[in-house]
Amino acid sequence: MTLVQFNGFKFVEGGVTAPKGFKAAGLHCGIRASKSKKDLALLAAAKPVPTAAVYTQNRVKGAPIEVTRRHLANGYAQAVVANSGIANTCCADGVEKAEEMCRLAAETLDIREEDMVVASTGVIGQPLPMEPIEEGMPALAGALRADGGHDFAQAIMTTDTVCKELAVEFMVGESVVRIAGCAKGSGMIHPNMATMLCFLTTDAAIAPSLLQLALSRVVADTFNMVSVDGDTSTNDTCCIMASGEAGNPQIAAQDEDFETFVNGLYAALMNLSRMIAADGEGATRLMECIVTGAETVGQAKAVAKSVICSSLVKAAVFGADANWGRVLCAIGYAPVETDVLRVEMSFASEAGSVLVCKDGMGVPFSEEKAKEVLLKDEVKILLDLHSGEESAVAWGCDLTYDYVKINGDYRS
Amino acid sequence: MTLVQFNGFKFVEGGVTAPKGFKAAGLHCGIRASKSKKDLALLAAAKPVPTAAVYTQNRVKGAPIEVTRRHLANGYAQAVVANSGIANTCCADGVEKAEEMCRLAAETLDIREEDMVVASTGVIGQPLPMEPIEEGMPALAGALRADGGHDFAQAIMTTDTVCKELAVEFMVGESVVRIAGCAKGSGMIHPNMATMLCFLTTDAAIAPSLLQLALSRVVADTFNMVSVDGDTSTNDTCCIMASGEAGNPQIAAQDEDFETFVNGLYAALMNLSRMIAADGEGATRLMECIVTGAETVGQAKAVAKSVICSSLVKAAVFGADANWGRVLCAIGYAPVETDVLRVEMSFASEAGSVLVCKDGMGVPFSEEKAKEVLLKDEVKILLDLHSGEESAVAWGCDLTYDYVKINGDYRS
Repeated sequence: MTLVQFNGFKFVEGGVTAPKGFKAAGLHCGIRASKSKKDLALLAAAKPVPTAAVYTQNRVKGAPIEVTRRHLANGYAQAVVANSGIANTCCADGVEKAEEMCRLAAETLDIREEDMVVASTGVIGQPLPMEPIEEGMPALAGALRADGGHDFAQAIMTTDTVCKELAVEFMVGESVVRIAGCAKGSGMIHPNMATMLCFLTTDAAIAPSLLQLALSRVVADTFNMVSVDGDTSTNDTCCIMASGEAGNPQIAAQDEDFETFVNGLYAALMNLSRMIAADGEGATRLMECIVTGAETVGQAKAVAKSVICSSLVKAAVFGADANWGRVLCAIGYAPVETDVLRVEMSFASEAGSVLVCKDGMGVPFSEEKAKEVLLKDEVKILLDLHSGEESAVAWGCDLTYDYVKINGDYRS
Repeated sequence: MTLVQFNGFKFVEGGVTAPKGFKAAGLHCGIRASKSKKDLALLAAAKPVPTAAVYTQNRVKGAPIEVTRRHLANGYAQAVVANSGIANTCCADGVEKAEEMCRLAAETLDIREEDMVVASTGVIGQPLPMEPIEEGMPALAGALRADGGHDFAQAIMTTDTVCKELAVEFMVGESVVRIAGCAKGSGMIHPNMATMLCFLTTDAAIAPSLLQLALSRVVADTFNMVSVDGDTSTNDTCCIMASGEAGNPQIAAQDEDFETFVNGLYAALMNLSRMIAADGEGATRLMECIVTGAETVGQAKAVAKSVICSSLVKAAVFGADANWGRVLCAIGYAPVETDVLRVEMSFASEAGSVLVCKDGMGVPFSEEKAKEVLLKDEVKILLDLHSGEESAVAWGCDLTYDYVKINGDYRS
């Protein structure tokens, strides 16, 4: 899909190895049955570098999260090891296995175990087989390359149909800085903290605490505004490593350079959010709800999320049916006060825009034109609450037969 | 479906006209295109009788709710007029039209307009045509019969595939009392206050304030524990009229007779809740989540509802896939603290019971047996939180291709 511009920042080719200072690899080690599916991924910096992360808010947490959280307590990491196929969650020996994954990778890379980030994604409750990981590790480490980002991104995919990666380039002072990332996630997507798995790299020099602040701020407006199915996963992890090799003076305060970095991160995560929503399980179209005229950002966010989470709105978008009453209904049950008699609503896409509701009541519109608008791959629901100056965006997708098919028998 | 026994109360034939003192009718007047679909319903008592109601908590409310609420301020009503096809919601002249529906019915019945309850269900935002209602009213009033309950029940159906009505009989002191009801609702079902439309009658003599108390108490444990798709409708209304013709001494205090009445009402609404969930749009099976061992009723309810609302759990049940990790995931994101390491989980149906998880971790089980259990029409998810003595039940249904089909193009 086309990347959306932000702040004039430039997108460049590549994924997590686009910024200086990172090597990556991905291969099939045997966790997944199909040999054509990569299932083990490695990302490494030359030394321990500032690393920040956010995690799922589900009370049921994957074992890898416990280990990663402990390892990142000092704000530094050197490498990431991740697998797809099995989530290593709700198993009695999950933490031991996550630690073992770190130990295997660290030994092979000859780095400290405590400098490892570990992540798993896939089926919950099934035991993670360690043999394929142990046997595959030397080949994986040997495959680390400065252009290995795409292999890494492929190895963390599960039901994803599209590999989601990007890199953005911008100036911090006199230095060219890149932020790049890859994400996976297609079902069980309703992040409260991060999406399922997202690994980001940057060559910017930035203090660990500010890297964490930037990540938390931007995730709140991007991944936390995505929902595919309302199910908050147990394993969501979003992690960013900063190699510092861009040569900029270290970002050490909330100054102009920091704001530029935050904007660059927003450009990256906003587009990854769109990619995740558009590739939602079974989805045929991206649904973007843009709320303006809200009294507070909280109100704008609550309304936007309520709309994109509504099964009835999602099914109507699948059917390209301009059933705006369902959108108003979803505004009405959002957990926030809204004066529905002020709401103005339009459906929009590259085919144009159709006003369907004003002052909370229907207005005459061409069903034919609305259908044309809603049949496009990317559909916008525009809501002006006429109650203030704040705004928010949320991303979702339509609800389709294929969502049901994919999830009716995922484990077999 | 088979009615579930409660307290030894007996179910008898019939719907809203099963208790003494009510006549009902339903016919096709022309709001809906198909002449084979009834779309106008009338229920009448011989005089104004104690009447209580609960309504949707959606901030967007159908116009009929505003009018009914005003008319029921004194706790009495004599008749109900309802239509299907058009919800009379989000239209500028909605309140006037709801009042006009009351006026037309009251004139024809020669009763007070203020003693009318009015309700509408169907598409939001389209204008309600008054001509068919005006023209159909004399025939409708003329058709009122002491066995017209089934016609009434049919006339309020929309995408329902099954007519939902029942009557329960029990003793209050020396008197035989009946409570009967019919409900409609299949999509946009996630009641916070009542289900879409439910009309109940009883011949018990009971004071208006206690009738309201009984209704509110029982709805909290029944309709408010049902979710088909998480979308709280704009028009939910549940209303009960008490003719007093059973001959019991009026229930005027929270005594033993009141408790008996509450239990009778529970027997009725619990079964109507099961019927609504089982007939959820596109559903192939009823999903019942029974939570025991909870610290508080609030915790039990929150966990049970989170599980039945999960799209991933619903899709797994459709696929008869014992994917218990998704259930644990839904417990984890329920808006209540739960020690997941104490959770014990089984799937059960008439085919037997299979333990799948203990202490929050998977246990070995026969996938074949689990499939057999999950392939039945009524499936139970049994959760013991091992944290206390409280319990709750919630009802939902599986997520299927047909849900998507029905809602992808509902308006055409």
